[in-house]
Amino acid sequence: MAIVLGPNSYGKAEIRLVHVTRDGGRHDISDLTVGVTLTGEMTAAHLTGNNAAVLTTDTQKNTVFAFAAQHGVGEIESFALLLARHFVDSQASIATARVSVAEHAWDRIASTGHSFARRGSEIRTAEISYDGTTAWAVSGLGGLTVLNSAGSEFHGYLKDRYTTLVETTDRILATDVTARWRHTALPLDGGCDWGTSHAEARRHLLEAFAETRSLSLQQTLYAMGSRVLENRPEIAEVRLALPNKHHFTVDLAPFGLKNPNEVLYASDRPYGLIEGTVIRDDAPPAGLAWAA
Amino acid sequence: MAIVLGPNSYGKAEIRLVHVTRDGGRHDISDLTVGVTLTGEMTAAHLTGNNAAVLTTDTQKNTVFAFAAQHGVGEIESFALLLARHFVDSQASIATARVSVAEHAWDRIASTGHSFARRGSEIRTAEISYDGTTAWAVSGLGGLTVLNSAGSEFHGYLKDRYTTLVETTDRILATDVTARWRHTALPLDGGCDWGTSHAEARRHLLEAFAETRSLSLQQTLYAMGSRVLENRPEIAEVRLALPNKHHFTVDLAPFGLKNPNEVLYASDRPYGLIEGTVIRDDAPPAGLAWAA
Amino acid sequence: MAIVLGPNSYGKAEIRLVHVTRDGGRHDISDLTVGVTLTGEMTAAHLTGNNAAVLTTDTQKNTVFAFAAQHGVGEIESFALLLARHFVDSQASIATARVSVAEHAWDRIASTGHSFARRGSEIRTAEISYDGTTAWAVSGLGGLTVLNSAGSEFHGYLKDRYTTLVETTDRILATDVTARWRHTALPLDGGCDWGTSHAEARRHLLEAFAETRSLSLQQTLYAMGSRVLENRPEIAEVRLALPNKHHFTVDLAPFGLKNPNEVLYASDRPYGLIEGTVIRDDAPPAGLAWAA
Amino acid sequence: MAIVLGPNSYGKAEIRLVHVTRDGGRHDISDLTVGVTLTGEMTAAHLTGNNAAVLTTDTQKNTVFAFAAQHGVGEIESFALLLARHFVDSQASIATARVSVAEHAWDRIASTGHSFARRGSEIRTAEISYDGTTAWAVSGLGGLTVLNSAGSEFHGYLKDRYTTLVETTDRILATDVTARWRHTALPLDGGCDWGTSHAEARRHLLEAFAETRSLSLQQTLYAMGSRVLENRPEIAEVRLALPNKHHFTVDLAPFGLKNPNEVLYASDRPYGLIEGTVIRDDAPPAGLAWAA
Repeated sequence: MAIVLGPNSYGKAEIRLVHVTRDGGRHDISDLTVGVTLTGEMTAAHLTGNNAAVLTTDTQKNTVFAFAAQHGVGEIESFALLLARHFVDSQASIATARVSVAEHAWDRIASTGHSFARRGSEIRTAEISYDGTTAWAVSGLGGLTVLNSAGSEFHGYLKDRYTTLVETTDRILATDVTARWRHTALPLDGGCDWGTSHAEARRHLLEAFAETRSLSLQQTLYAMGSRVLENRPEIAEVRLALPNKHHFTVDLAPFGLKNPNEVLYASDRPYGLIEGTVIRDDAPPAGLAWAA
Repeated sequence: MAIVLGPNSYGKAEIRLVHVTRDGGRHDISDLTVGVTLTGEMTAAHLTGNNAAVLTTDTQKNTVFAFAAQHGVGEIESFALLLARHFVDSQASIATARVSVAEHAWDRIASTGHSFARRGSEIRTAEISYDGTTAWAVSGLGGLTVLNSAGSEFHGYLKDRYTTLVETTDRILATDVTARWRHTALPLDGGCDWGTSHAEARRHLLEAFAETRSLSLQQTLYAMGSRVLENRPEIAEVRLALPNKHHFTVDLAPFGLKNPNEVLYASDRPYGLIEGTVIRDDAPPAGLAWAA
Repeated sequence: MAIVLGPNSYGKAEIRLVHVTRDGGRHDISDLTVGVTLTGEMTAAHLTGNNAAVLTTDTQKNTVFAFAAQHGVGEIESFALLLARHFVDSQASIATARVSVAEHAWDRIASTGHSFARRGSEIRTAEISYDGTTAWAVSGLGGLTVLNSAGSEFHGYLKDRYTTLVETTDRILATDVTARWRHTALPLDGGCDWGTSHAEARRHLLEAFAETRSLSLQQTLYAMGSRVLENRPEIAEVRLALPNKHHFTVDLAPFGLKNPNEVLYASDRPYGLIEGTVIRDDAPPAGLAWAA
Repeated sequence: MAIVLGPNSYGKAEIRLVHVTRDGGRHDISDLTVGVTLTGEMTAAHLTGNNAAVLTTDTQKNTVFAFAAQHGVGEIESFALLLARHFVDSQASIATARVSVAEHAWDRIASTGHSFARRGSEIRTAEISYDGTTAWAVSGLGGLTVLNSAGSEFHGYLKDRYTTLVETTDRILATDVTARWRHTALPLDGGCDWGTSHAEARRHLLEAFAETRSLSLQQTLYAMGSRVLENRPEIAEVRLALPNKHHFTVDLAPFGLKNPNEVLYASDRPYGLIEGTVIRDDAPPAGLAWAA
């Protein structure tokens, strides 16, 4: 028996980059949180503290800022790919790179060309993985909270000794959507129209959530994922994590009042958590796309 | 020398109420976080545990839900006033009530009449105080993050032994606006158009932030507050808390790159904090408006 | 009618300072979050952006670090006082200073003299205010969560139409203690033994919480505050904010099980919030002690 | 090409359970956050909303509370195993169950047998997975923040165009330890002394962190993991996630002051993130241990 080093990685997390592009008096801003994760032959660093193979996380951070200056930011998938390729292609000791970006959206305040208000808590995400030969692209979103006040039922489920839940044909359905979708192929020249692809995937997720008469959150999840795949050939797989944000109907009978699902309290914890994948049966191998 | 009870209060905090209004297939939702704070003669409860004067916080919570069923929610100032008056007017042992509401906005998802997406982190707020005779209304907003990528300078400040900051005529100015404004008078019949008043105050805050060529965040603060007062006669006083969310220009010289304020890192802590009041010199007494 | 500047202040918030003291191989660390708030004649900065009276928040931050190097940290009340006096005494344009410190405690890991584990979420706090002549000291603590699983009752309260709460002679009582206590006098030479004073005040708060047979959280609050005043003559006033962290007895009857207050669910929101002051009737004037 | 359902799961997250055990006047409390994740043949629920195979997340929550009443809590690994086996063994439609528990520690307040103060932010964790035949046990901890103020170096790393970091033989090393360790075998009768195993693993992690002269955080990580494996034969694999919580030496030279690593500012973001596995080369297959 021996003790050995297993899978390992290192990187810089939560690099907060804001990039301003000036076109005369009209500015654009990109507001990103970037993470870098690298792997390679790191046994010496772990066993003896020999750091000869280590590209420091401080250098990774500097590289993110320097690349923003040299190349701009543009679509986050393209920016992440540029960085991932740089790390692997420039250093023999780096085998794989994964660059994750969350973009925080801002709206213009109309009166000037340089004033902005942050849109909210929703983020657009990209995760690019690269192994020196192949790159994988996962786009996504997070922090998108949605609610249907009609069109949701829940019944016909298993009952056991511990079941008290009452079946319903009319409940509130609310969730915080975290969605990630894997692209079928990633053109290394960055030729894909990432922005349109993201906007359309987001639109289909929202519309499927709204338009599905839901018998369970699982059914809604599948409807959301399959709607994206039906409409976006560039996407091979959709992964969704949907917390069931419970809104309970308040019992107002003690006060002589009726409550036809109008007065609800929004509960924090516990919550249901429904996770699932919708995928094309001919999807290419996922490779490193979903790593960690 | 004796030990005595000083100022005290009690209440229920963070009551999460969602109210659905149905007009056929078209629904509206109000999503509120409500807090109640009551005062009165509570010496017995503190000294001997005699609770005869205590309206329990559980009852306060029930009342919030029951009032939503009986009266709807509508404008949050009106809903808060209704509750504040109820608590004081219905119980001899309650001297003052303060009801605070934060409203979380939702946008419609177009495809149905019952589907919504939460707008983001900005909240609209109302705080109503009532003492049995007079009511005071403070409206406001929070979680509104804004940024100017031009039009901001900072120079001419004091220098001492510990000053290293370099003067600048071009910096990023960003802040999370927390604003609260006191209304000149609160008609107890709720006759004020709270929604329009809020929307206009918010618009003036945003426009003043954007349009002010800023020599300091203090100057921007004053411009925001005075712009509201100049345009909204129903508002007597504006209080602003503006964290200076520092965006530092990254030094790219070591990489042979220029950085004309294009690549910035957004720092979390520490941050500047500028707080100030802008007020009419003939504003009526504030009474309990700002209590706590 | 004119629009004028009202009360205002500025400063640096959340300066994260870690100070290491080396005594040979045995180290000590102080881990602080420091905030500075200054006031003075700031009309020009607000109205015209003339910053001649402004000691920048960046300089304030530098001063905190430089003072730690020059004077060490020691007791946080002493460190805060040193800073507060410096700001007011060194600049004519600064009328008052308030320095707030939260100290995060660390325990030693025994095997070396330089290894530490952070103790937890409890913080020790100090807030020193100074106006050029007088200084006020408020010490305190936050993040101290306590629970009694016996010895707590709640009954005899007001009932109205909206009351459903059932009276009980046996409930769980839990709260997150935020306590702040004002010292009777602050010797400007820092001669008070702040450490002992804090440890003893904390001990009395904890023991009073545990030993009080509670008929209401208000009664427990008063017992905690008065216990401190009875035992610590250097303390003039205690302010407590005690959220009632509800632990509800789960209804297990549907499963044929009894639940004599053994299985509880801990609810996040809403929560009760009990706030109160216990004070000596001959306490000196509070002055700026509680400002803001 | 067809669109199909891929991997999926569902469950209840963040069930907050507090359990009180009474032995006369002396009480013990267990404070847990429990999560349940189930898998099975769920195609119908996703494609048609047929819920016949769904054990609702509400029932899962009820079961957690009812099991605490019937069996007590005891060691969290045993409690989680009991639940995981119940879900799979009692319902044909459930193929695997994963029960995750985080335990929040409390210390006694000495003066009574029923009074407690929460210890802090560190949690003890257990994750039990079960597939109807085999169970896997992962124990761990989170929220343990540690710091060495001596004994840490960092040099000899790769330099490229973007490297500015200065090599050092004396730096602060601080991290928030998240550690999870897989047990070699899980006796289904719960016979293992989980409490001792956890306390000893924790002690070895802390001591290895303190006693390792660190040339990189990777080296410290490996030392921590291997120390556990060397001393605890019941543990087969240790996974560690160690954020490098940077403490930067403040430049005091502009003020004519020296700073021999005594005055530091603790930075929030970005941070390094070092993740790695230390494993026995004859470890049994991990099966579902690390799922999700």
